[in-house]
Amino acid sequence: MIRIAILGHGVVGSGVAEVLRQNKETITHKAGEPIEVKRILDLRTFPELPYADLFTTSFDDIVNDPEIRIVVETMGGLHPAYEFVKACLQAGKSVVTSNKELVAAYGDELLATARDNNLNFMFEASVGGGIPILRPLDQCLAANEVCEIAGILNGTTNFMLTRMFQDGMDFDTALAQAQALGYAERNPAADVEGHDACRKICILASLAFGKHVFPDQVHTEGITNLTPADVRCADALGCVIKLIGRVHLQGDKLHCLVAPMLIPRSSLLADVNDVFNGIMVRGNAIGDVVFYGRGAGKLPTASAVVADVIDEARHLESRKPLFWGAGAPDYVLDPKIEEYAWVLRFETADARSLRNRLHEALGEISEITYTGAAETGVAVRTPRLSEAALQSKLAPLADTTLVSCLRIAEL
Amino acid sequence: MIRIAILGHGVVGSGVAEVLRQNKETITHKAGEPIEVKRILDLRTFPELPYADLFTTSFDDIVNDPEIRIVVETMGGLHPAYEFVKACLQAGKSVVTSNKELVAAYGDELLATARDNNLNFMFEASVGGGIPILRPLDQCLAANEVCEIAGILNGTTNFMLTRMFQDGMDFDTALAQAQALGYAERNPAADVEGHDACRKICILASLAFGKHVFPDQVHTEGITNLTPADVRCADALGCVIKLIGRVHLQGDKLHCLVAPMLIPRSSLLADVNDVFNGIMVRGNAIGDVVFYGRGAGKLPTASAVVADVIDEARHLESRKPLFWGAGAPDYVLDPKIEEYAWVLRFETADARSLRNRLHEALGEISEITYTGAAETGVAVRTPRLSEAALQSKLAPLADTTLVSCLRIAEL
Repeated sequence: MIRIAILGHGVVGSGVAEVLRQNKETITHKAGEPIEVKRILDLRTFPELPYADLFTTSFDDIVNDPEIRIVVETMGGLHPAYEFVKACLQAGKSVVTSNKELVAAYGDELLATARDNNLNFMFEASVGGGIPILRPLDQCLAANEVCEIAGILNGTTNFMLTRMFQDGMDFDTALAQAQALGYAERNPAADVEGHDACRKICILASLAFGKHVFPDQVHTEGITNLTPADVRCADALGCVIKLIGRVHLQGDKLHCLVAPMLIPRSSLLADVNDVFNGIMVRGNAIGDVVFYGRGAGKLPTASAVVADVIDEARHLESRKPLFWGAGAPDYVLDPKIEEYAWVLRFETADARSLRNRLHEALGEISEITYTGAAETGVAVRTPRLSEAALQSKLAPLADTTLVSCLRIAEL
Repeated sequence: MIRIAILGHGVVGSGVAEVLRQNKETITHKAGEPIEVKRILDLRTFPELPYADLFTTSFDDIVNDPEIRIVVETMGGLHPAYEFVKACLQAGKSVVTSNKELVAAYGDELLATARDNNLNFMFEASVGGGIPILRPLDQCLAANEVCEIAGILNGTTNFMLTRMFQDGMDFDTALAQAQALGYAERNPAADVEGHDACRKICILASLAFGKHVFPDQVHTEGITNLTPADVRCADALGCVIKLIGRVHLQGDKLHCLVAPMLIPRSSLLADVNDVFNGIMVRGNAIGDVVFYGRGAGKLPTASAVVADVIDEARHLESRKPLFWGAGAPDYVLDPKIEEYAWVLRFETADARSLRNRLHEALGEISEITYTGAAETGVAVRTPRLSEAALQSKLAPLADTTLVSCLRIAEL
């Protein structure tokens, strides 16, 4: 019998308790012995639950209980999650978390604390919800030099973009529908401004390339400025727009970025719709591998947490290889030097003159004819060039109205 | 330093040697110490290779060498692969194989031998080539009750079906192109008759549901009878045809089947084209997860083998949980009782009379209008019914010419 505690009985925490009960037989078989929840930390009480007597409001009841070998952190947020996880590791308990914000901010430090105490710190659920991605990336791809990871890492924004593409909705209507369906929170900033996707690409990049990447090192653009005209313009190019988190190696440094990008309809990631996530891993031996599934949701996320609990239960006396080192200030390259082809959309009263000036400034461009373009202006596709070069070339056009500027990613 | 041997220096075996050299630094880091190939068994010699001195034609040089801790079997075929693997396990060496025929035929026995000798027997590369699928299935989905697996498991036939759909090729032309490109062997029976896919679904089913499933328990249909008319007919229904290996639970028994099936274009598996494989795993907590990538090829397959070697190198003194038990004669259900909707295609000189007789025999059917149907006959979609029920209902139509009978899978 292995006793565990759960910190936070919200959506994921209650899901963990549910999965542990529902799949008890499979889990006992896989873990080698039964796993029992001994304590649940929450400020609320749940008198109606069959396990109401497990609740405590005191973290001390958990951290000071030597019977508890594994602690599951599903509180979310940085504090006190960080302090609690750190204290549990220092008290000799292995930890599982679904908290991407925590791992993206303190992953290197907590992994080192776990290592120093000969414990495991795992967080499969922090990226891709229920999709197995971190463990395959770490273990199954061990024989590959991973060179790139690109993914649709946020289900809420992917749902919204799908509605904008399939139903012609504008951003506000898509957001309202996402909120009505419970996919988006009342304050949707973390999703629509790209911060959630940023935390996840940080975790993937840290694991794949071995050094911690911090969210503030990663240039992050959200989807708040996307309009139906952008959608029609992408469509005319045979593309969809997805919020992509992407990292790839250049020498021993990283390009790492979160932004809405046009990707060709033929790309496998183009078919990842609604709240689903899709993550492409490119290795030098394996080629492209894609992992696809529900990136969020109570039971998928809880099942990933429980899989980690089982793995830690099997390795109470040994350490798993999951690890990365400290980050460095100049590890992530200036996003302005990475080259992309761009789609630029202008509003103008004088399309002919603007076209001439664009050709002069940018050279080889192709104009994009899309529905509604007549009223809204001129759209062009540029050759591959860095954002720095683009800005410098566009300097003479400072008097024009550039309404949209999007990268094209050949994924 | 961990010393290994490779049995068979063919496509995969030479790929293993290549990946071990090419990614030496990553591999040493992941395994904890360097992995060195000490011996390679092959009847041929390769004097031009920098490691020509490692070759031997004598299996005894490997099985009797106590320095060799891990043996990689990449010979293919059942014999002597089975005898060699068994002897290596009995001699205290962990084994990695890419040989799906071997695992599908003797997996339960070899897993038991490995367990009895406190060793590991791994075969990630046997399904899905480089796609990590067995390890995620076993570990990451540990918290799920898996209820179904369905996949495109054979790259050669998927390449041919893609050409038939996208370029209107017939079977023979598609096969000739697959052979010209090196995707199909001169004797393509194992691929086009579904045996390769059958071995893979056996391995997946054995692992997911815990008891060995043998290839001769699984009803297997190939793609040799598919014609351009079938393709046009599927297209008219908004479907593609894929060679699907599928297994799902009913009570404590399995439905397990390999057959060409129509799947809706909206299915994620419908977009798995060319030589790619895609495997969908459905769990009670996780929902649907799809794994996608190159299902074959020298380096992808070799990278999966090497990942297993690394895992075994890290676990020389302990056992991984990968295991399943012996099979049972009645474990797989009669394929004739599983219900599907069907597409039936008839050739007839008298379409009107056939339509009336079909309505009489089958009740609620919908006719499919497809290009070229006028010359070739009548096609209908039936409601869901078992093959047994279908055959009994069609008995009065024994005088008609049923040219094609395909399942529709809602995947």
